[in-house]
Amino acid sequence: MIIIGEKINSTIKTVRAAIENRDKSFIQELAAGQYDAGAAYIDVNAGMFYENEAESMEWLIHTIQEGIQAPFSIDSPNPKAILSALKANRNGKPIINSITAEKERFDAVLPLAAEYGTAIIALCMDDSGMPETVDERVAIAERLVEKLTGEGISPEDIYIDPMVRPVGTGSHYGMVAIDTIRRVRSEFPQVHVTSGLSNISFGIPLRKLMNRAFLVAAITAGLDSVILDPLDKGLMSMLYAAEALTGRDEFCMNYLMKFREGELEL
Amino acid sequence: MIIIGEKINSTIKTVRAAIENRDKSFIQELAAGQYDAGAAYIDVNAGMFYENEAESMEWLIHTIQEGIQAPFSIDSPNPKAILSALKANRNGKPIINSITAEKERFDAVLPLAAEYGTAIIALCMDDSGMPETVDERVAIAERLVEKLTGEGISPEDIYIDPMVRPVGTGSHYGMVAIDTIRRVRSEFPQVHVTSGLSNISFGIPLRKLMNRAFLVAAITAGLDSVILDPLDKGLMSMLYAAEALTGRDEFCMNYLMKFREGELEL
Repeated sequence: MIIIGEKINSTIKTVRAAIENRDKSFIQELAAGQYDAGAAYIDVNAGMFYENEAESMEWLIHTIQEGIQAPFSIDSPNPKAILSALKANRNGKPIINSITAEKERFDAVLPLAAEYGTAIIALCMDDSGMPETVDERVAIAERLVEKLTGEGISPEDIYIDPMVRPVGTGSHYGMVAIDTIRRVRSEFPQVHVTSGLSNISFGIPLRKLMNRAFLVAAITAGLDSVILDPLDKGLMSMLYAAEALTGRDEFCMNYLMKFREGELEL
Repeated sequence: MIIIGEKINSTIKTVRAAIENRDKSFIQELAAGQYDAGAAYIDVNAGMFYENEAESMEWLIHTIQEGIQAPFSIDSPNPKAILSALKANRNGKPIINSITAEKERFDAVLPLAAEYGTAIIALCMDDSGMPETVDERVAIAERLVEKLTGEGISPEDIYIDPMVRPVGTGSHYGMVAIDTIRRVRSEFPQVHVTSGLSNISFGIPLRKLMNRAFLVAAITAGLDSVILDPLDKGLMSMLYAAEALTGRDEFCMNYLMKFREGELEL
């Protein structure tokens, strides 16, 4: 499972304040904590700083790579902010989070991925808006994979995101997400499938419970990357259980190791 | 979700002692507690009483139906014990737990189900032993459904159990169970698919964690009945989340109700 640590996000109040105050140690600790907890990528989001997103992004990248060598997930729809992060980056191959099949966004972001040789998260969404059905999502995924590989991005560098919608707004959206993951995984075995967990539980109480259930269902369907808080032990425990359950953790070796390290909890 | 409450089982020490001492109130409270918590069937197992299983079963049935009207899951491979329970039963249509495709067991148990008009749990197992692959399991399920319906048992009264084997003894057994559930559900939409949860985690630590992960994966694959402890709030919370996630809980109404009643927890 390729974990993208989601905590360095300007929508979180304490993180926003730390970016505002240029509080290096807060940011560095949060990055290192996620890295130690298993994050393969550190997501950086400065989207709340409309006026100086690019500059904030640059500061985040510089600050984090002073401390750790984890590659970044550059979380922005804004080409200027992405470019600024790419220029600042010294931590190996990053992932751009994200592109869509919307023409303007695709044309603006794709050249950055191509020029800097990054991986990229591609959301199942186009100019007609958020798709409703599994078929619509898979069709967009097909177009995205075709266009991205056509531009020289290798399939192993593409992370398809099914665009999860909340079950609280439509009872079918859970199965739509799960079935989209299964279809994309089976149609494009070389491509990664990733997702955040929190959209599914938007608007309902005890969101962590629903997020955990979705994580298990999504892994069972073929999710091989996930955007989450690796510092949430209960959630990570469920991830280790799901990996052992689905045969990705040979002989439950990692599950047993995490148990011995005191990392597993209900 | 059709819940079969598993707690009245003579392999549990306190329950065994209560059966031995004919402790009515202990048994009645445990039955009523499970019923209140959502069990559609109360499983009764007196298998540890080799010498007088039939008599113990009869006492359990009489004792529980003094207190509540929940139908029973008669948990025994022993035709004498099953018959004794069927004769004692006044709580509506029970389910026999279980039959297999083993010739001797099938021929001994089937007439009891037919004569008493019960539902029945049918395990994917035959005289060649525990099946290894999904295909073998589905083939046994096909034979079981064919033979049972041929003897007049209606599809709605058949509960196929995929025969879960521990992931600790084979990393593929989790997906074997999940894929068997999906295949049986899709091939026989009228037939129920049920399972216990504890086999999956046999031999590994923090079994409750793995059981919860398996519950979510199994429900996502089409499990519509489950044998579990309905008094385990964390497990039941995961069940409610999985039902909302898979669209079986329209508008998350039950999830929201359970939350308001203080029944949801991580």
